[in-house]
Amino acid sequence: MTMAQKGTVYLVGAGPGDPELLTLRALRLLETADVIFHDDLVPDEVLALAHRHALVTSVGKRCGRPRITQQGIHALLIDSAQEGQSVVRLKSGDPLVFGRAGEEIAALRAAGIPFEVVPGVTAALAAGASLGLPLTDRKSASKLIFCTGHHAMSKDATPIWSGPLPEDATLVVYMPGRDLSRIACELAAAGVAKDMPCCAVSRAATSRQSIAASRLDGFGKLECGPAPVLLLVGRAMGPLLTGEAAPQEVRELVAEAATELGA
Amino acid sequence: MTMAQKGTVYLVGAGPGDPELLTLRALRLLETADVIFHDDLVPDEVLALAHRHALVTSVGKRCGRPRITQQGIHALLIDSAQEGQSVVRLKSGDPLVFGRAGEEIAALRAAGIPFEVVPGVTAALAAGASLGLPLTDRKSASKLIFCTGHHAMSKDATPIWSGPLPEDATLVVYMPGRDLSRIACELAAAGVAKDMPCCAVSRAATSRQSIAASRLDGFGKLECGPAPVLLLVGRAMGPLLTGEAAPQEVRELVAEAATELGA
Repeated sequence: MTMAQKGTVYLVGAGPGDPELLTLRALRLLETADVIFHDDLVPDEVLALAHRHALVTSVGKRCGRPRITQQGIHALLIDSAQEGQSVVRLKSGDPLVFGRAGEEIAALRAAGIPFEVVPGVTAALAAGASLGLPLTDRKSASKLIFCTGHHAMSKDATPIWSGPLPEDATLVVYMPGRDLSRIACELAAAGVAKDMPCCAVSRAATSRQSIAASRLDGFGKLECGPAPVLLLVGRAMGPLLTGEAAPQEVRELVAEAATELGA
Repeated sequence: MTMAQKGTVYLVGAGPGDPELLTLRALRLLETADVIFHDDLVPDEVLALAHRHALVTSVGKRCGRPRITQQGIHALLIDSAQEGQSVVRLKSGDPLVFGRAGEEIAALRAAGIPFEVVPGVTAALAAGASLGLPLTDRKSASKLIFCTGHHAMSKDATPIWSGPLPEDATLVVYMPGRDLSRIACELAAAGVAKDMPCCAVSRAATSRQSIAASRLDGFGKLECGPAPVLLLVGRAMGPLLTGEAAPQEVRELVAEAATELGA
């Protein structure tokens, strides 16, 4: 397995949080890169896997208040690569799903910097796994839709979905914000049935994961736990409401795994 | 990192094919399970990572002609666990995305067998990574939709999407079948613009990956390469048509990685 190459930028998915859900390729690059620029959501247990001489820098933007601009991130990536460093740009989940990787890729292309994208386990898949529920199902969910509630926090108030939502879909909302009642209204307006099973997964795939579930008509009143939160909506979530499925115990292996891997 | 436990079934995502895109958890379970039941699409390079004393069995169903029924798979999983074996059910990509995991989970629950789902990198994310193109984009793709063309091969001829498809979505079609002209017609009927960028990725994330791209109005005539094929449709694929983005060279590391990991 090749190590991180000098002068190259690797856009790497860190997965949902649990270090065991890193890919082998991501681990190898983390262990060998000179410089690592990471988002806020990447946990310390993952960052601890970096080489001890690596420069590890957060370029996260918390709660919409940028500490560093997107253009600033581009400049850091390009400058570091042009100085001959091997650079990992570490994003939680998968870099191509709601990670603004497109803008970084365009900047790297324009600057002629070699780059590679390393996919990761996106949070929705980890949330489904820890619920022990499928995201697609031959009978009830032939489509899987990822969208973002990020708009809901901006001024333009674009709903998360316009027009009718297919009945046979599982909808996953990334970054839903705190206002579940607003999202519940938007889903009702998109024709989602009152009895549609909905759940909110807080801190998916970590030892502190928590889950709240209800029908759509009770969803606005749920407490959804600390960020990051994912919402999952669809018939495939039904077993959460009937008690048929209890979420699996989340393995409390995050610290243990980090210790072993870092050894 | 804990090894596979006796009497437990692990539904494990093998990722898109490249062994480097296995998660650390998947590798650990493969290395320690007594019994492995896998789909046809899991490549030999991944299966080679199993313990040399493990019983490795294909339960794949090729081209709709079942060699083993879904109920037969359930019986194998349950019997092996009840005999006290540690069991890995290995599925390509992520087990919860178009993998019939829901039926296997329900059978395991009904039989009282402990199980764990280990998420994996689903093929769409690996295809996007090897294209060097984002699947979501703040300007052009605020939604990501996975659907399946599997219906297109059955008698009922359900279209892959009913009603208008959002303009700002990236649509990924898993298992599209060979008839791209039919899918192109269905997309046009769903209101997709004639000039919408479309691409077909054959054998994503392997050393034999190939890509064909065109506007929707030329898509029906494209040769899409051998299965497994994924279709990606949306403005985010635009750089493939302008020549702005050439697909990254696919790393020819599959065999090399397998050798190293197996050593």
